Amino acid sequence: MRPTHTDKILYGGDYNPEQWPQEVWDEDHRLFTRAGIDTLTVGVFSWSLTQPAPDTYDFTVLDAVLDRAAADGRRIVLATGTAAVPPWLAKAHPEVNRTDFEGRRHAYGQRHNFCPSSQLYRRLSTALASRLAERYAHHPALLAWHINNEYGGACYCERCAEAFRAWLRERHDSLDALNDAWCTTFWSHRFTDWSQIEPPNALTEHWRGPDHTAFQGITLDYLRFMTDALLGCFVAEKEAVRAHDPATPVTTNFMGAYRPLDYHRWAPHLDFASWDSYPPLDAPPTVAALGHDLMRGLKDGAPFWLMEQAPGATACRDVNPLRRPGELRLATWQAVAHGADAALYFQMRASRGACEKFFGAVIGHAGRDDTRVFGEVAALGAELRALGPVTVGASTPARTALLFDWDSWWSLEISDGPSRLVKYLDVVHGYYGAARAAGADVDVVPVTADLSAYDVVLAPALHLVKGGLAARLEAVAERGGTVLTTFLSGRCDEHDRAFPTDAPGPLGRLMGVRVDEWDARPAGVTNPLDGGGEGSLVFELVLPRGAEPVARYTADFYAGTPAVTRNRFGDGEAWYVATHLDAAGTDRVVRAVLARHDLIGPYADHRDVESATRVAPDGTRVEFVLNHGRAAVELTAHATATDLLTGTRHAKGEAFTLGPLGVAVLHAG
Amino acid sequence: MRPTHTDKILYGGDYNPEQWPQEVWDEDHRLFTRAGIDTLTVGVFSWSLTQPAPDTYDFTVLDAVLDRAAADGRRIVLATGTAAVPPWLAKAHPEVNRTDFEGRRHAYGQRHNFCPSSQLYRRLSTALASRLAERYAHHPALLAWHINNEYGGACYCERCAEAFRAWLRERHDSLDALNDAWCTTFWSHRFTDWSQIEPPNALTEHWRGPDHTAFQGITLDYLRFMTDALLGCFVAEKEAVRAHDPATPVTTNFMGAYRPLDYHRWAPHLDFASWDSYPPLDAPPTVAALGHDLMRGLKDGAPFWLMEQAPGATACRDVNPLRRPGELRLATWQAVAHGADAALYFQMRASRGACEKFFGAVIGHAGRDDTRVFGEVAALGAELRALGPVTVGASTPARTALLFDWDSWWSLEISDGPSRLVKYLDVVHGYYGAARAAGADVDVVPVTADLSAYDVVLAPALHLVKGGLAARLEAVAERGGTVLTTFLSGRCDEHDRAFPTDAPGPLGRLMGVRVDEWDARPAGVTNPLDGGGEGSLVFELVLPRGAEPVARYTADFYAGTPAVTRNRFGDGEAWYVATHLDAAGTDRVVRAVLARHDLIGPYADHRDVESATRVAPDGTRVEFVLNHGRAAVELTAHATATDLLTGTRHAKGEAFTLGPLGVAVLHAG
Amino acid sequence: MRPTHTDKILYGGDYNPEQWPQEVWDEDHRLFTRAGIDTLTVGVFSWSLTQPAPDTYDFTVLDAVLDRAAADGRRIVLATGTAAVPPWLAKAHPEVNRTDFEGRRHAYGQRHNFCPSSQLYRRLSTALASRLAERYAHHPALLAWHINNEYGGACYCERCAEAFRAWLRERHDSLDALNDAWCTTFWSHRFTDWSQIEPPNALTEHWRGPDHTAFQGITLDYLRFMTDALLGCFVAEKEAVRAHDPATPVTTNFMGAYRPLDYHRWAPHLDFASWDSYPPLDAPPTVAALGHDLMRGLKDGAPFWLMEQAPGATACRDVNPLRRPGELRLATWQAVAHGADAALYFQMRASRGACEKFFGAVIGHAGRDDTRVFGEVAALGAELRALGPVTVGASTPARTALLFDWDSWWSLEISDGPSRLVKYLDVVHGYYGAARAAGADVDVVPVTADLSAYDVVLAPALHLVKGGLAARLEAVAERGGTVLTTFLSGRCDEHDRAFPTDAPGPLGRLMGVRVDEWDARPAGVTNPLDGGGEGSLVFELVLPRGAEPVARYTADFYAGTPAVTRNRFGDGEAWYVATHLDAAGTDRVVRAVLARHDLIGPYADHRDVESATRVAPDGTRVEFVLNHGRAAVELTAHATATDLLTGTRHAKGEAFTLGPLGVAVLHAG
Repeated sequence: MRPTHTDKILYGGDYNPEQWPQEVWDEDHRLFTRAGIDTLTVGVFSWSLTQPAPDTYDFTVLDAVLDRAAADGRRIVLATGTAAVPPWLAKAHPEVNRTDFEGRRHAYGQRHNFCPSSQLYRRLSTALASRLAERYAHHPALLAWHINNEYGGACYCERCAEAFRAWLRERHDSLDALNDAWCTTFWSHRFTDWSQIEPPNALTEHWRGPDHTAFQGITLDYLRFMTDALLGCFVAEKEAVRAHDPATPVTTNFMGAYRPLDYHRWAPHLDFASWDSYPPLDAPPTVAALGHDLMRGLKDGAPFWLMEQAPGATACRDVNPLRRPGELRLATWQAVAHGADAALYFQMRASRGACEKFFGAVIGHAGRDDTRVFGEVAALGAELRALGPVTVGASTPARTALLFDWDSWWSLEISDGPSRLVKYLDVVHGYYGAARAAGADVDVVPVTADLSAYDVVLAPALHLVKGGLAARLEAVAERGGTVLTTFLSGRCDEHDRAFPTDAPGPLGRLMGVRVDEWDARPAGVTNPLDGGGEGSLVFELVLPRGAEPVARYTADFYAGTPAVTRNRFGDGEAWYVATHLDAAGTDRVVRAVLARHDLIGPYADHRDVESATRVAPDGTRVEFVLNHGRAAVELTAHATATDLLTGTRHAKGEAFTLGPLGVAVLHAG
Repeated sequence: MRPTHTDKILYGGDYNPEQWPQEVWDEDHRLFTRAGIDTLTVGVFSWSLTQPAPDTYDFTVLDAVLDRAAADGRRIVLATGTAAVPPWLAKAHPEVNRTDFEGRRHAYGQRHNFCPSSQLYRRLSTALASRLAERYAHHPALLAWHINNEYGGACYCERCAEAFRAWLRERHDSLDALNDAWCTTFWSHRFTDWSQIEPPNALTEHWRGPDHTAFQGITLDYLRFMTDALLGCFVAEKEAVRAHDPATPVTTNFMGAYRPLDYHRWAPHLDFASWDSYPPLDAPPTVAALGHDLMRGLKDGAPFWLMEQAPGATACRDVNPLRRPGELRLATWQAVAHGADAALYFQMRASRGACEKFFGAVIGHAGRDDTRVFGEVAALGAELRALGPVTVGASTPARTALLFDWDSWWSLEISDGPSRLVKYLDVVHGYYGAARAAGADVDVVPVTADLSAYDVVLAPALHLVKGGLAARLEAVAERGGTVLTTFLSGRCDEHDRAFPTDAPGPLGRLMGVRVDEWDARPAGVTNPLDGGGEGSLVFELVLPRGAEPVARYTADFYAGTPAVTRNRFGDGEAWYVATHLDAAGTDRVVRAVLARHDLIGPYADHRDVESATRVAPDGTRVEFVLNHGRAAVELTAHATATDLLTGTRHAKGEAFTLGPLGVAVLHAG
Repeated sequence: MRPTHTDKILYGGDYNPEQWPQEVWDEDHRLFTRAGIDTLTVGVFSWSLTQPAPDTYDFTVLDAVLDRAAADGRRIVLATGTAAVPPWLAKAHPEVNRTDFEGRRHAYGQRHNFCPSSQLYRRLSTALASRLAERYAHHPALLAWHINNEYGGACYCERCAEAFRAWLRERHDSLDALNDAWCTTFWSHRFTDWSQIEPPNALTEHWRGPDHTAFQGITLDYLRFMTDALLGCFVAEKEAVRAHDPATPVTTNFMGAYRPLDYHRWAPHLDFASWDSYPPLDAPPTVAALGHDLMRGLKDGAPFWLMEQAPGATACRDVNPLRRPGELRLATWQAVAHGADAALYFQMRASRGACEKFFGAVIGHAGRDDTRVFGEVAALGAELRALGPVTVGASTPARTALLFDWDSWWSLEISDGPSRLVKYLDVVHGYYGAARAAGADVDVVPVTADLSAYDVVLAPALHLVKGGLAARLEAVAERGGTVLTTFLSGRCDEHDRAFPTDAPGPLGRLMGVRVDEWDARPAGVTNPLDGGGEGSLVFELVLPRGAEPVARYTADFYAGTPAVTRNRFGDGEAWYVATHLDAAGTDRVVRAVLARHDLIGPYADHRDVESATRVAPDGTRVEFVLNHGRAAVELTAHATATDLLTGTRHAKGEAFTLGPLGVAVLHAG
């Protein structure tokens, strides 16, 4: 089930009118109309309002909100509102509150404050979802269901401990198998009864926080368990909705590359993916792009929704810069270029109080329509309306896949040795960014994805290798494709046990190398490669076993030994990068790989220019060209095309200018 | 009630002879006489000695201490000693121990370790105070009562939770009003019973410590509640003393700009203000001066006591430098210049053990009178005696007021957005320091102060505006005065709700500006102003609505827009500074404001020279001139005057020299 | 009792075959033989395997391991395996789990997880040791007993509180004496019943962690108590072993300069000392050397065992570099040069899982014998075998002693004031390193050691002085020796009370100086001395009282006053260094001291060259010359000698070359 295909990119966002007197609502809708807003997400934190007491439901406000929206023809994304429990529930039943990593049960406060293993929470949250579905399934404004909100965090209470033990019994055939999987002979940990197993936290296996554990096996399993426990909450609510509403699509808003939850385990249960994009301060544009492509990869390339972005400054960071003129428009078109069928904001009108009162909103505290932000939002609304349906439902014709793997992320970052300084996202983003800069469309996919359609498979920091992955990667090369992996790949099996073989374990045959040892150095220590660029952090010592060196270290006692290798395998190639390359080094390697398959894009020489292609269900091909720079760029049209935003036609070979932060949406012909 | 007017500045300090064998006491008094010591604070931590068991009081030591002091004509400041509970009490009644921000009840240890809501603590501490007052009210040596010590910290126990709920019922008319004040529709927090409200801490609304809260409203109210809860302890002890001693003045020692307690709520309950001055390592002299002026402002400009300062090095810091030759004298005269009628030390003789054993003392472990420190203390004692009564009871004739507001401090620093890097004291100190450097006497006053006597009102970082403050500031300008405020002012009402208007909220009319948006950038990113100086951290985008630009940003997309504005209002002016100015920029703005009222002092061109004026009850005017530099300065007498410390007469227009760290106390004629 | 004198330096390490299938064991032994491995430490974390249930012991695996070793003639160091409790024990009896510094009882996890005061733990751990001793006392492979493992950490549970109170009753004659020792009149702490005393931790006397305490006295006593509590565990296990095995020597592996445990209190109870050397990233070679000499000093200079070192990279650090070619050999010969009779690794074969799976091992996951590491291990094995017995049982003929004192370490680092930046090990290592660089052999000894054999006694940072130490140091000088001490020495008595005298307290007479005050400045502030080098952190102001200045401060108001002094005392000298000297300054002072006694070595001008002498029981003198540099050095033989590693003879006065990281083991003649 997919969201009803709409006749344009949906535009709007989170709307919490319950925080304002009702007389403001009409003014809100006047402004929505002015800004081209057609979609509103409501009820996200309304539990305490909708169910003010155990036996009392009150739909007065929601009725009014939905009816008011319907009156103006706006559509509603209706939240179940279960992400923050009401005070009466926390007080009457402390079991619903979470117990943190330090083992402390919290009292009432904040949000995302429920224990996923609490049966009481489960019963009450699904009851609420059921009531809402019963009441609004057939409301004319209803467009989609939004279960809970930004699922995340973890709980370590006794109920979770029990649920974890049950989960382990399912996963491991026996206690012997578990002891073997976790290597419990180490440090006298052989369990003789399931009840002896405690959640791994600051009071058990951890020190210095969540990344330092005595037993990677239990910590890894707890991460998987908690992913599943929270997913269980989602599925239960979804089922409650489905009982009353078999048709309306259901989603929940993800957070992109969010470490605590393996979204690939969730993806099959969503009707469509949606996410909230809040790139950190001064992040390069590829950070948001990676998020988009990761989210698009959740549902086999189907379009996703940008469920939240900030129309102005955030408020949750230490330093919250405003979005400069044009940035909002550029970021929104970037989302569309990567597969978004909806562009929604958090939020429509600014809260008066609490920790998000200074979070940027379409309508500020003064309710003005003459602010810079409102002006940009309205202009973008007009642009989106003018574009119409052309990109809705479109897909991305990528020939490059990047494997993204939560198991590898977790196992790499909870590892003792060789270096705590290596961060999974840094490595992955490095290769992703290089491919994007070279102009390749990239699908970011799980390790279980069908790889048969790709010419190039990038698998950076593939620390944990499980299932038949190695064989499937070999098949890519065998048929002529190129596979790239890096240092610290192929190190652990699915239980985080080192492979009892040479590194890189099951990837060794494909890569044609053997790695006996590896050096780690503090940040700032670099080793230049003879091919350009330099390595840092980790330096593996590679013994070629079939592969040929492409670049070599030039310093330290291993100067002259290979840092990058290429192995011919079947009709294809396998590249191994043995150190953490800087951008120059990564670019060089990735472009060499892409060039072999003719995947370098037409604007690859323009550092600030991003391009992305979408193909509509009817075959229409649209190319987005985005200038992330603050200076105009001169480009040459690589095909005759019309810019759908301006109507300007660029003949093939002609020069055209893309202004600072400029966007072109090109349609052939 | 004020401290008995004495015939000189009181001189002495904390004295804990119970830590030493009694034979040392006579030696102590011999040294006191030699150093001109006339005042001793005793009994500050003597509870376990005075009440060694629930039903046993033992006054042997205190009797001896007071009698010994009286024998030499020294006066006693008698502490009630209730700031650290005795071990037997903590063991027998764990309820008296505090529960910390993490929700952990402490066992016995340290000091300031009592729960302010414990009725048992209240009963026992007032009983002790009562016994002491009964016994010593008429002791010939008694000069003042010193309740408890350096009140501070906070408790989060169940008793405090109950007391908080009761406090909230008093403050908020109803639960609906509270829900409205705290904006509890945000994140599903609508309370339906008072019992659902928990103290805001690490187990409820906070993360990353006391400054990160999901609900600013509850956190702000808890800060006010805890201020009141501790104040309740003070008042209860004071009443117990008053029952036996209607006449002797009562104080407790404050800590200057101490964030946890709103001293303005305490001030009416003290007979006189006193404080402990321990400026941080290498702080500029204006830091101590701001503390003095803030303390003087507590009691409408009445003199205060410097209750503690270190005669040598501190011990509580990571790095504890000694006070260089002359620094102690200079700091003491600075205190007097700002309104101190007493100059007391912590402490008279060094402790042998525990965490303050290396804290500087007048008399060290060896009991010598030939140390450098003892020599400087004694010389200063002689100087103070020689000066006599001239400054006792004097006031400061300031025409400049600086508003200091704990509510703004709290709301600014617990805010999410725009920048965690803005610190209230930094901003306030910036404007205070600029005014002092320009030679203006400054009264540091609460936002409720009568402003009618001031030409200039500086209101930096006035984040929270409540009551009729905006109107009273308008009145200042209306009648010809100048009001200055800054970025992030006028943002919240008394419940920390954003004003539903343009920023700067109720200050907008006076300032003649509108602020729709604001940028924040990391430390180190600056934006030079065309008028000189540069801004950092926060950059508000100002739309003049009547005001004229005084200085403009020169960088970023808002280059050319106003960074400092001036608005004519009635007969006066209102200045708005839209960014965090550096010292050069602040000096420029503040001097422009002061110059309009002819408030630039005669030594404003001497960077290291501070001047301050005090006017005695009989109208005698004394000018203090302090050289904080390590080089002598040549000054020109702006009026004919005699230096009371040296007897030297400086005719008007004549040059005179102030040596390194030099002090002159000038009397006209 | 000493370890059986063997005919060569023992070679091998920790071996955990229980983590691997039994078919791997034969392969392990094949590789052991190839690498010259003769000694294996087994059973270190085998409790859960050996005792899988309260009433079940299972020796199948250990039997097989020992028998297999015996079959190849290898010797076994048998661990009792009690350093990590089995899960069933922690679950059934939570009292055995530790309560941490925050007051939280842990659930099951990690290792070193037992409460030392738990009688149940005591009973079960000694029962296990007893069973093992009963079974293996006469096993042919048994070489030594290894009790527990790396004792450390601390517990703060109610059982420990009770045991602490009992310990205090033993140590302090009465509660009055304790109150006096801890100065409890400070901050109202007078205890009136032993039960009022709580362990000092985050819930009682501490803030900001273990170094910040309100009462140094209680914290110091708790450190001593915890040392004794863990020692009690060791002694109990040793006695259990002795009941069955009166002959085999018993040890436990120490960790060098490990702050939590005063190893000098342990030393008498060990039959021989052993330790695990893991110098931090990029530490100079003198760090490991100081560890060796400290360990050798535990048993009056008797040889120790290097029980663990990493054959490759560690895994427990943020950054884990590999050991570069030659480093392992050099570090091993350095250990032998300083007194090691055994050179053992952690570990023989890499674990497959958990937090040490990437910890370097002799045999890696692939089981290869053609890795660089295996090659270096095997080459070193051959070298050690070739050397034979010559150094076994040898002693070090040092004429320089360095006092190492846990009490001073603790009291210095838990002190409030003058500077938290002064670290005991930094100061001690500074003087140790200077003496070693000058070529002096150094015995690192407790303050109770017999000093009569030494020409030079270095006593840096001797903060706490107790017993007759001052008199014994005076005796050293009296008879012509030289004593050196530094800033912050002689400050506290055994209870951490300041001496009621001039500083440096009881050392003042010997030093001929008086110190009234001291300055502290932040890191980076230095004060150059006129004699070369510069001081930092702490600057004491010295008044000579008999001593003569050797070097003076050149900056600040104390420029020209002494920074280093020398006092003639009897036939000898006493040196006082009043500031934290840099390396140049320390070298200058230490070489001046050593030169007086002709203790400058022949290679003192070669910065990277270390030399050390050992004298075998038969009087044979062996000189080790080690080149820690990466460049070859040209040396001149100071006596005719033969290099036992190469057979090369160097005639006196002849030049010889020591390659990069080179080693020579020279035997006269």
